[in-house]
Parts: sequence; structure tokens; C-alpha cells
Amino acid sequence: MSKLVVTAAITGGVHVPSLSPHFPYLPDMVVDQAVGAAEAGAAVVHIHARDPKDGRPSSDIGVFRDIAAAIHARCDAAICITTGGGLGMSPEERVKPIGILRPELASLNAGSMNFAIHRLADKIETPKFDWEIPYLKSTEDLIFPNTFRSISAFTDAMYAAGTKPELEIYDVGMINNVKYLLDIGVLKAPLYLQFVMGILGGIAATAENLVFMVETARRVIGAGNFVWSCCAAGRAQLPMTLLAMTMGGNVRVGLEDNLYMGPGRLAKSSAEQVETIVRIARELSLGIAAPDEARTILGLKGRTAVGWADAA
Amino acid sequence: MSKLVVTAAITGGVHVPSLSPHFPYLPDMVVDQAVGAAEAGAAVVHIHARDPKDGRPSSDIGVFRDIAAAIHARCDAAICITTGGGLGMSPEERVKPIGILRPELASLNAGSMNFAIHRLADKIETPKFDWEIPYLKSTEDLIFPNTFRSISAFTDAMYAAGTKPELEIYDVGMINNVKYLLDIGVLKAPLYLQFVMGILGGIAATAENLVFMVETARRVIGAGNFVWSCCAAGRAQLPMTLLAMTMGGNVRVGLEDNLYMGPGRLAKSSAEQVETIVRIARELSLGIAAPDEARTILGLKGRTAVGWADAA
Amino acid sequence: MSKLVVTAAITGGVHVPSLSPHFPYLPDMVVDQAVGAAEAGAAVVHIHARDPKDGRPSSDIGVFRDIAAAIHARCDAAICITTGGGLGMSPEERVKPIGILRPELASLNAGSMNFAIHRLADKIETPKFDWEIPYLKSTEDLIFPNTFRSISAFTDAMYAAGTKPELEIYDVGMINNVKYLLDIGVLKAPLYLQFVMGILGGIAATAENLVFMVETARRVIGAGNFVWSCCAAGRAQLPMTLLAMTMGGNVRVGLEDNLYMGPGRLAKSSAEQVETIVRIARELSLGIAAPDEARTILGLKGRTAVGWADAA
Amino acid sequence: MSKLVVTAAITGGVHVPSLSPHFPYLPDMVVDQAVGAAEAGAAVVHIHARDPKDGRPSSDIGVFRDIAAAIHARCDAAICITTGGGLGMSPEERVKPIGILRPELASLNAGSMNFAIHRLADKIETPKFDWEIPYLKSTEDLIFPNTFRSISAFTDAMYAAGTKPELEIYDVGMINNVKYLLDIGVLKAPLYLQFVMGILGGIAATAENLVFMVETARRVIGAGNFVWSCCAAGRAQLPMTLLAMTMGGNVRVGLEDNLYMGPGRLAKSSAEQVETIVRIARELSLGIAAPDEARTILGLKGRTAVGWADAA
Repeated sequence: MSKLVVTAAITGGVHVPSLSPHFPYLPDMVVDQAVGAAEAGAAVVHIHARDPKDGRPSSDIGVFRDIAAAIHARCDAAICITTGGGLGMSPEERVKPIGILRPELASLNAGSMNFAIHRLADKIETPKFDWEIPYLKSTEDLIFPNTFRSISAFTDAMYAAGTKPELEIYDVGMINNVKYLLDIGVLKAPLYLQFVMGILGGIAATAENLVFMVETARRVIGAGNFVWSCCAAGRAQLPMTLLAMTMGGNVRVGLEDNLYMGPGRLAKSSAEQVETIVRIARELSLGIAAPDEARTILGLKGRTAVGWADAA
Repeated sequence: MSKLVVTAAITGGVHVPSLSPHFPYLPDMVVDQAVGAAEAGAAVVHIHARDPKDGRPSSDIGVFRDIAAAIHARCDAAICITTGGGLGMSPEERVKPIGILRPELASLNAGSMNFAIHRLADKIETPKFDWEIPYLKSTEDLIFPNTFRSISAFTDAMYAAGTKPELEIYDVGMINNVKYLLDIGVLKAPLYLQFVMGILGGIAATAENLVFMVETARRVIGAGNFVWSCCAAGRAQLPMTLLAMTMGGNVRVGLEDNLYMGPGRLAKSSAEQVETIVRIARELSLGIAAPDEARTILGLKGRTAVGWADAA
Repeated sequence: MSKLVVTAAITGGVHVPSLSPHFPYLPDMVVDQAVGAAEAGAAVVHIHARDPKDGRPSSDIGVFRDIAAAIHARCDAAICITTGGGLGMSPEERVKPIGILRPELASLNAGSMNFAIHRLADKIETPKFDWEIPYLKSTEDLIFPNTFRSISAFTDAMYAAGTKPELEIYDVGMINNVKYLLDIGVLKAPLYLQFVMGILGGIAATAENLVFMVETARRVIGAGNFVWSCCAAGRAQLPMTLLAMTMGGNVRVGLEDNLYMGPGRLAKSSAEQVETIVRIARELSLGIAAPDEARTILGLKGRTAVGWADAA
Repeated sequence: MSKLVVTAAITGGVHVPSLSPHFPYLPDMVVDQAVGAAEAGAAVVHIHARDPKDGRPSSDIGVFRDIAAAIHARCDAAICITTGGGLGMSPEERVKPIGILRPELASLNAGSMNFAIHRLADKIETPKFDWEIPYLKSTEDLIFPNTFRSISAFTDAMYAAGTKPELEIYDVGMINNVKYLLDIGVLKAPLYLQFVMGILGGIAATAENLVFMVETARRVIGAGNFVWSCCAAGRAQLPMTLLAMTMGGNVRVGLEDNLYMGPGRLAKSSAEQVETIVRIARELSLGIAAPDEARTILGLKGRTAVGWADAA
């Protein structure tokens, strides 16, 4: 049986600093928590950039590069760069870092959907930054835009950079989108699919839904043509990732997806969530993939063939 | 067992005139084919407006009113007005007819998604109208926008007009969207769900998917809280509607969804497809709901409480 | 797309003569209705023997041979011999005809289960024969016995006779039984699976269940390793076979499974049910496999390599 | 959210002493391991009797009584008495203890199936007892017999004794069996269902199958009419019980189902497996039901209203 690839999604573009005192939005915090997650067992760290001034999601390539280079210097986890960006960024902004930074792995969102996190605004009494509440509330009217044309353009940019796409699948139809892109030759197997569950606008985080997503991917794409992982928003994070582990899938945890360890217990870092996964993997007699094992499983080009290593 | 409600979707906002000589895009053609479908057994006719000059999707209230009034004068089918509009219309344009025409039924799209019909352009050698090919091709970059804010606004407009929403469900996550809108009191049970399958960008038209959608709706919304129907794009139209019939669902057919009767055989009208459904319903010992029976099943306000009847 | 193989199950070992005046229990009736079904479009006829005196299920090889030879003389449908026997027969009795008659196809029941048809006794007011009511009622305490040892022995007998097993699958676990028998080399792919739904004791006849059975078979056995068909008991016969047709499966109908055409309307013969299937296949643009086409699809040895052809 | 009811199945009627030096087959071992499991967190202990001479499954009421009384004296876990017996016992032998011992809970197997554990024989080099290898090997030809008549008789005996049936569900069709017995008034809701997965002859132990079983039970029996638990044979024990925990189900572990903690690591007792469940429940923020909380959840009559308490 294959070892378990654990990804830690450190900061994302969804949560805002006021939601947790432990939420890493400054570059140094992102780096420290990424390194901590890697030390705890994450083979992949998934990173977003945020504006050092106020924690607002950013597409600043310098910030991305500094974060990646610092993580690179301190651990050998594979680094996955988002192309989801912050909610509301243009596709052009979102994809720009790929060509320049040439990461081993980048997220590639496989379709468009409502992406509504406005209910999080109710949890904040006194926001640290002015932009937070309006940002969250605006998502009641937000679409996360990933048309076929932009998915194709993103894919081309990734392949040109030697970057493996991590296909973010938020609903069943997106598996069909992926199949279409395979059929017309835009995507190439083997694929790496990340089932992202529990975003309002996408599929809910239930066992029924995850099993159906995996079954659908097997039927449509073919069991031999993809490796998969699962992540889920909020309190569904642990149940869904456990389920994935029992089904032969890989998992993503981290504060991007969930700020808690349990009801009322804030996580101090993504590393804490990785540790939980590692303990449960041990109970299940599942080995944890080291970064280079994960590179083999996911088909990555290697740690040094990236833009920030040139710089170093 | 409840009788079968057959809906005929006459013209839609997807297909273009060059795809079939039988495609109804002039108001008179829409009216004639709607009446024909009703005579063949459709209890509901679902209509879009198109520009009388060139068949381009339109939100002209006068066109809607004229079509509805003419159908109303010639048959007693319930009339469902789209709020999906033509691809690319603004939400404001799309919902405008509801408040004025106050139909018994209107479509309410339950989320955002890619809506890609660009491959249809390849089927046209010599277009009748200049807009057709660019219109189809543009959908490779198109999102069908239905944010939570606009769905809520559309719902409010419908309830204010006494119009029953027909919730168009294109993917599993949209069932969850509906549940959220029920929970916050925007939508009210019982609901009427239309599972729309086989649009590239939404869920594929397979038996597995339809069964899962129905199961999910039962689990999430509760079996007693909704009536459902199914339609599917292209060649999946008949298999999916047959499956729906065997599962206790209702069906929608019509040239909006499918221009064919079988491989290489263009349908002369939506009525032809309704006739097929009626024949198969007879084989299954299923009764066909007359318009007033459908009004009871779907919970509609009645034939005369609509804007075009005032006018008449 | 492959053509549709229609099987007609003429008399079975479940129903009793008093349930319908059209029920064929005398050898001549079985032959006539089998030939009629073939003429209507059935490529395979599935036969049981019954005692000519009183219609009781029988394992008399002479009766089997006479029926098979007579059908053979009048049409070219492939003949499938049951090894399910009448309820209560010993495994030895049930398999005996295979070695002697060497049919092209024989049923092979893939596991043990309760097989309860006692409720049918309530439908009979004045039985034609004394054995009927006790026979039906006894099934409240009946197990249909097909242990791994007997399935293996039956399989060996079939392969030795050049007979293709038609694996009767009554529940999900039986797919796993089949997988085990494949893994230990008793069964050999490609397989022919018949999903038998709606027997009390086995899986119920619902769309959810059929879809899950097919999905499970694909996942466990591999989509390329089997051809499948579906039949269902009683009023579920037509809905389930229609569903199978829309999913790419083949179908079995006939009075063994269902005595009716619809509520209160007895079928005059299996041919009537075949005709329904043929009409609906035409609506679905599905071709009907002729006997030799079915032989290719199912992998049968050929019409003349059978015991009754020697005799002729 | 309801607390988690953990059941420990101590010895069963399947495994044989030679399979593990830790396997409890003497009455004292059964008692000690049951008490240990209760101390570790099991609210219910499920017991079988075995012959004190050689560990052979037994239906001796004295042995059952002694075991139950000794457990009762040392802890307050609810005691569930099997009616599955040893493989090959008659139904009469299997149900006899219920009327006399009147336990709070008893297993009630919901249908017939092959029950094949012959492959275990290959794991034994030098058997402790002569009966073991033949016992295991004989199951290649074994049916676990639970006809509708015997299930009904067992149910009547349980209700007469104030004993709650724990319905053992080995395949999807058995859910339908239960529905039938509810419909005719033999069983009464609310029910307690135990999904037993991974026995060769029943449904395989996969996530797809457990999700489908639970979905089917909800659809057929109604989500409000049952409480459920899951257990699984061999190495699937932990993955399946974890999945159940994430789905709101309860769990059964113990050496009856699985002798191991992981590949090559024999469990020293059922308590070890209970401890694993308790650790993982803590990670999931799930509370563990104490025995009296479990009595409320399962609807049991109470600790002292049992035959062995009279004796005490």
C-alpha cells in the first residue's frame, strides 16, 4: 500500500486574521508554520501570499518568492503555489507566479462556482483590519471564476513551467470538466486530484459525497489515471480526511481549511493538525510519505528545479 | 402513484437557429410548438424569448408577454418563464419579466457554473445569422452567474409575484445551496427541483449521477419536501428522462434540451419528444398529468392569476 | 454501441400454474412461448423443466431435452438451462442436466439467500394442483443453497461442457463471491452477470440498487471483464429493465419473473413482454441483437454444439 | 451529537484457539477480556459460549450464564448474547439461551448467506485442537441459516424476554428483509442495526459499501427509526469502524472480528482495540457512551432485569 501524502495548507485566501490569533498572515508566520508542518510530517506545503501590511490576499510575486525560498532553505517539503489567489483576483493575476517561480506543484481549480464564506463575518466582533468584514461579506455575491478558457491557459502555463497541476475539485461536475480537458489534450494523465469539500457553493462535506466523488473519478477518468487527496472546510476537516485515509486517498489539512482542533479549541498551527493525522495514520498502520516519496507518488519534477532555487 | 408531469422546453437560450430547420425562434414558431407540445401531453411549457429579427436570446418583456398570451389563448398548459435568460445577460435583465408577467412558474438557477456549449459551433457549416458562431464559441469562457445574492433576489421576486420557483439543479453542490437557502428562510418548502444534466460545466448525464442527485436531495432536503423532474442535454435526453420516470420523477423534454429524436434524426418539434414520453409512460402504466393535475402536484397558483391574462 | 441482448425466461421454478391461465407449465406450452418470445426479439430463452402431470418444477433430463430440442427445431435462439431448479431441489439434481445436455448457456447462482415467495399464496383462491399452496408457503422457511463448494462444482461442470455460466447475482455480496472465485481461478473472465432484483431475501428492485450493483461490479471485477443483464420480479420488471437499457445493460423479461403487463393486466406470454422491450429499444435507438449477435456478445460456443442437437 | 457506543465482541463463533495465543476461549478468559474491554470503554460486550474443554463453539446455557454472571459482577457493561451460535448449530440451539437468560441485548441475524472462513485454515500450522481445521474448512460448504420463519421465531423469543434485538446485517438485501419484518409487524421500531462487513459470502468491507448500506437503511427504514453500528472482519476492522464514527454510527471491535492490531501485530485482547477506538474518538471530539448512556441510546431494559441477576 502506498504511503500517505500529507499536505498542509498554511494560510489560504479565505480566512482573515481576526478569526484566530494563531492565523499566519505575515510572511514569517507563513514560513514558520509551513516549516513546522513539514517537521510534523507534511510532505507538501500549500502556500498563498498575503500583503505583509494587513494580511490581505495578494498575488505579489516577491512575497511568494520570499516565502518559498525561506521554506526551501529550512526543509525539503514540496511547495505548492496557489492559483486560486484571493477571492476576487483576476485570472491573470492568479496565474502570473507560475511562469516565474516554476513551482513543483500548483493548484488548478477545475471549474467555476459560488464561493460563499460570508457567514464567517458573524464570528468577528472587533476586526483587526478594516478590509476583513467587507471581504467576507462580499462573498455572498462572489463567483470563483475558472472558465474552460482560463483553466486551459493555467494548465498550459503549468506544463510550460514543469509544474504539476493539483486539480481542485469542488463538485461532481468538475470531474467531468477534467475529463473533457483530458479528451481534448489540454490535461495529461496521470492526474493529481484534490477533492475540496464543504465550501458553500460546492459539494457538502459528507461521507456519501466523498465516496461518490472518488467513484465518479474512477469511472470517468479511470482508477489508474489519477492519485487523489481530500480536504474539507471547518469541522469536517478531520472526519473527511480520516475517511480519505481509509479509502486509500491522501489528505490535506491546515489553517487554510480549518482553524480548529475541535469544538472551541483553536489550532495553534497547521502542524497540530498534521500531528493528528500522523497519530491516526499510525493507528491505521499507514506510513507517512517523506517529501521525496511524495514527489514520486505525485510525479513532481524535483526540489531544485524551481524559480526560488535559482535565486538562492 | 402520482401522475407524470411532462414539461416541454420549447426554445431555450442555448441552441441557435442554424442547428435545425425545425428550431423555433420566431415568436409564432415558439407559440405553435408550445401548443403542439401541450396537445401531445405536456402540462407545462417552459419558454424563453428570442429576438424576432434574428433569433437571438432576448429579455424583451413584450415578446415574453405576446408568447405567453398566445399560448394561454390556445391551450391550458402552465407557462414557465425562464430567468436563465440567454447566456451573458445580466441578472437584472433575467429577472425583470417575473414581476411584470407574474407567471405560475419560473426557473430559478441554483448556483453558478461554467456553461460551455462551444462545441456546438462545429456542427454549423453556414450560419443563418452572424451572431450564432461567436455566441456559441464565447461560452468556452462563460460562467452562468447565479450568486447567493442574486438567487435570493430572484426568489423574493418570484414569491412576491405568486410565482413558484422551479429550481434548476446542475450539480450536487446546488442541492446544498438550496438547503442553505431553506435554512435561512429565503426558500420555502415544498420545493420543485429540476435536475438539469449533461451541460459541460455541470454534472454529466449518467444514471449514477441522477440517482445520486435524487438520493442527496432526499437526504438533505427530506423526501417529503420536494417534487422533482429531470431533463438532460442532447442524446442523454431520453435515457435520463426514462430513468426519472422509473424513479418516480417527472420529466422535461423539448428542443431547448435536444434537437434530435435519435442519431441523425432531427425532431420536427418538441411535441414529437412529448409523444415519445407519452408512449413510454403508457408502457409503464404511468398516467400523464393534465395541466390542472400538474398545478396541484407542483403547487401552482392557477392559470388566470398571471400578467398576460390581465392583458387579455 | 453494442446491441441489446433480450432474454426471455419462460416458466422458471417460482410461479405456479394457478397464478395465471397463460402460465406455461406443460412442455408444449413452454416450447410455444419460447419460440414466440424468440420471434418477438429474444436472442436467448431461459428454460426450466416442469412435470408434465402437474406443472411442478422438475429436474427430469428428458423433459429438458425435449423442450430444448423442440425450441431448437423451430428457432435459433440460444437456450439457457437453469441450474436453479425448483426451490428445494438438491444441488446434485440441479446441475445434472448440464453435463448431459451441454447447453450454450446455463444459470449459475452466485450465493445463498432466503428465497421467499410465500406471499404469492394469498393470490390463489382455488388452486389447480394440490402442491401449489404448500410449495409457495414453504418458502417462508426456505434457503436457496449455493455454497462456495457447490458453485465451484457447478462451474467446473459448465466449463467441462463448454457451457457459459450466466451468473445470477441477487445481492451485492454475490459480486464479491464472484470476485473470490475469479481470484482462485474457478471462474474465468469475461463473465456474464445477470442482476436478479426484487426477490424477498435478496436485494430490492430499485434504481439505487441496480446502479450500485453495476458500479460495484465495475469496481471489483473491472468494467472490461463482464457483460451484464438485469431482470426483476413482478411489477419492477419493466422499470428495472428500462433502467438497464439506459445504462448499457442487457435485459431479461418473461413470465418466470413477472406474470403481468401492468396493474391487473396479465401477460398472455413472454413474447408480449419482449415486444414491449423491443418497442422501447426502438425509441432509444437501440438495436436488438439477433441470436448470433448475442452469441458473440456473450461468448457462446454456438447453436449446434449442444446435447439436443446430437439427438436430432 | 450522540455519544459513541463501543461494543466489544470477545470471542465469537468463528475464530479458533490456534489462531492467536491471546484468543479467549475458556470462560475465565472470556470474562477477563470482557471486563477489560468494558474498563477500556466498551459499553456493551457481545459474548458467545465455547466448550471449556476445547474451545469449540457451544450453546450450553450454563456456560453462557456463568460468563454473564461473572461479567455482571465485575462491571456494568450491557451484555449481548449471540444467537448466531457456532457455525452449524441448529436454530433451536441458537435461540434457546434467550428465553432463559433474558439478556438486555441479543444478536438477530437478518438473513441467510454463505459464511466462508475456510481460508483461515491455511494460517494454522499446528492446531491445538483436532476440531479446528475441519471446522474452518467445512465452511466452504456452509450456509448461515436464518430463514424468515426462524428470524420471526427468534424475534418473538427476544421480545417475550424483554431483549432488544441487535440486527446483524451482512448484505443490502437484509435491510429489505428487516423492512418486510417491520411491515408485517414482527419487528418493531426503533431498531438497532449492526452492519457486519467483510465476511466472505456477505458484503465486502469497503467505504462504498458501508455508505450504501447506511443510505439504504435511511431510505427504506427511515433515518429516525434506527440506531446503527458497524463491525468488520480482519484488517478492515479499523478502517470501517473509523468510517462509521465519522458518519454518526457506533462501532463494534473485538477479537471475534479481528485478531490483530495491524499487520503482523496480534492484539493481546479486545481491550486493546477498544483503546484505539477511544483514542481516535478523542481526536474526533466524540464522547464515549458509558453503559447507562448506551442503554438509553439503544433502548435496553436495564442491567438487572436479566436471568443471571436472578441467579445472583
